[in-house]
Amino acid sequence: MKKIAIAIHGGAGTILKQDLTPELEAAYLSGLQKALDNGYKKLSGGLTAIDAVLQAVIDLEDNILFNAGKGSVFTKTGKHEMDASIMDGKTLEAGAVAGINSIKNPVQLALDVMKHTEHVMLSGQGALDFAATKNYALQPDKYFYAEQRYKQWQLVQDTDTVALDHNIQVKDKKFGTVGAVAVDSDGNIAAATSTGGMTNKQFGRIGDSPIIGSGTYANNNTCAISCTGHGELFIRAVTAYDVSCLMEYKGLSLQEAMHIVVHEKLVRIGGEGGMIGVDNNGNTALLFNSEGMYRGVRNSEGMNEVKIYK
Amino acid sequence: MKKIAIAIHGGAGTILKQDLTPELEAAYLSGLQKALDNGYKKLSGGLTAIDAVLQAVIDLEDNILFNAGKGSVFTKTGKHEMDASIMDGKTLEAGAVAGINSIKNPVQLALDVMKHTEHVMLSGQGALDFAATKNYALQPDKYFYAEQRYKQWQLVQDTDTVALDHNIQVKDKKFGTVGAVAVDSDGNIAAATSTGGMTNKQFGRIGDSPIIGSGTYANNNTCAISCTGHGELFIRAVTAYDVSCLMEYKGLSLQEAMHIVVHEKLVRIGGEGGMIGVDNNGNTALLFNSEGMYRGVRNSEGMNEVKIYK
Repeated sequence: MKKIAIAIHGGAGTILKQDLTPELEAAYLSGLQKALDNGYKKLSGGLTAIDAVLQAVIDLEDNILFNAGKGSVFTKTGKHEMDASIMDGKTLEAGAVAGINSIKNPVQLALDVMKHTEHVMLSGQGALDFAATKNYALQPDKYFYAEQRYKQWQLVQDTDTVALDHNIQVKDKKFGTVGAVAVDSDGNIAAATSTGGMTNKQFGRIGDSPIIGSGTYANNNTCAISCTGHGELFIRAVTAYDVSCLMEYKGLSLQEAMHIVVHEKLVRIGGEGGMIGVDNNGNTALLFNSEGMYRGVRNSEGMNEVKIYK
Repeated sequence: MKKIAIAIHGGAGTILKQDLTPELEAAYLSGLQKALDNGYKKLSGGLTAIDAVLQAVIDLEDNILFNAGKGSVFTKTGKHEMDASIMDGKTLEAGAVAGINSIKNPVQLALDVMKHTEHVMLSGQGALDFAATKNYALQPDKYFYAEQRYKQWQLVQDTDTVALDHNIQVKDKKFGTVGAVAVDSDGNIAAATSTGGMTNKQFGRIGDSPIIGSGTYANNNTCAISCTGHGELFIRAVTAYDVSCLMEYKGLSLQEAMHIVVHEKLVRIGGEGGMIGVDNNGNTALLFNSEGMYRGVRNSEGMNEVKIYK
């Protein structure tokens, strides 16, 4: 059996130890460990990389601490608009949803777009119409409500401020996104990403999370990548696919390619954030150019850790 | 002054001479020539590549023959949903709109997203709310009405058929998209793409046209690309940025890189369609793996032609 591995993230940004209470820090670490373990169990049980990234992202979406699914931030009008995507490195099939509400697990809907339509990306009410054909239950707004998010929104709702942060009381930027990448025992890889977007966002803004090539990419020949960061800059840099191209066309390793993209190319354009990656040999990398990134990694060679700070 | 050049497309697919009347063929060629000339005039007048691609795409959007702006195809519910994007190779700034209606020139709105917001991509009603802040007039549905599109839709509206075609009475596939790429006298390059999507489309489907990296990409160091084809496969292949990476990381020429993507990589995954490209030396290429592509190219060395078939 080949080496199996999973890596996850729960967002990057200005995450400083002095800004988190011990209780909150423990809750973040516990949430990450649970998602990591539940994803890993799929792999160790012989299931696919797609199964593993789906499970880990669902766990993070269901955790109110992370800005995806339950606990998503508020838009300008007090709503929740979520984006998600998933890609299978074996088949290069992909699915994505953008600007949706009322769906408990956007990443599951993205997978159903991939599996049950001839499309890659569905948006808005149309995506919900598709969800209805698959008998998705719609959650009331209160399901997504998190007191901390509501307070964040209250601070800025009457302004034109759009907060990239998922935790505004911390002074600087945080990018609220969750994601997972995995390699299974057949050497197939996959990636998935999900987000509630930006606090106080308006105008139906779509960031990099649902964009194949920018927020998410997977190809068995190179890597599976899930990003978190200042979405607009990640789109302009086509960040996830750039790692793949550096591996395919320049022969770089996963770590080398991710280093160039995260610490050189993104830094040059002011693109704060990070990404997680895996290749089909079971190598993993978790890189960020911000102060911190909620993250975790586990593999069949005994690695098993969750971290927040540098 | 450096060599200036512009290339345009009006969609690709199964476009066969025997399927077009001489009158319709002449109308297509005339529409292409007008857009090409109006875009070229911007360049020869000393304006930027962005000005040129904007003008050419506006001309194609305003022409009822092409599936973008006026003349956009009908969705499942008899509406028009349009997507567009634009990217500046000098600054790597980009703007895009997805799933919008009632806007005469979606490419202009994409440019305003780029210039006047901190975002890259706006969608649906939110994008229209942004347009309202810029005093865009909303067009009634009848502005977009084209009898030929209505007939196409009538043929399939009661079925689950989604037509990639923009001219269904022709037997096989056509991909209704318009686009332009240009290099100006300062050696700056730009790309823009606009589409009315797929006849009878539903579920808020978004194709490659508004996706930076897939349908549109521009970078002065490599190339500006606008694609037309089976959007889902172009998204999965991250088509436009792939050309850029082949140039940047493998040192290929524009023509070589486009050849690999259009005639090898896309063909392998069944991705029918084509693309136009330009580099900062004024080289242009117009490649497609389908039967035809509405296209044109003009430069300051005397090249000036519009074509439809192989």
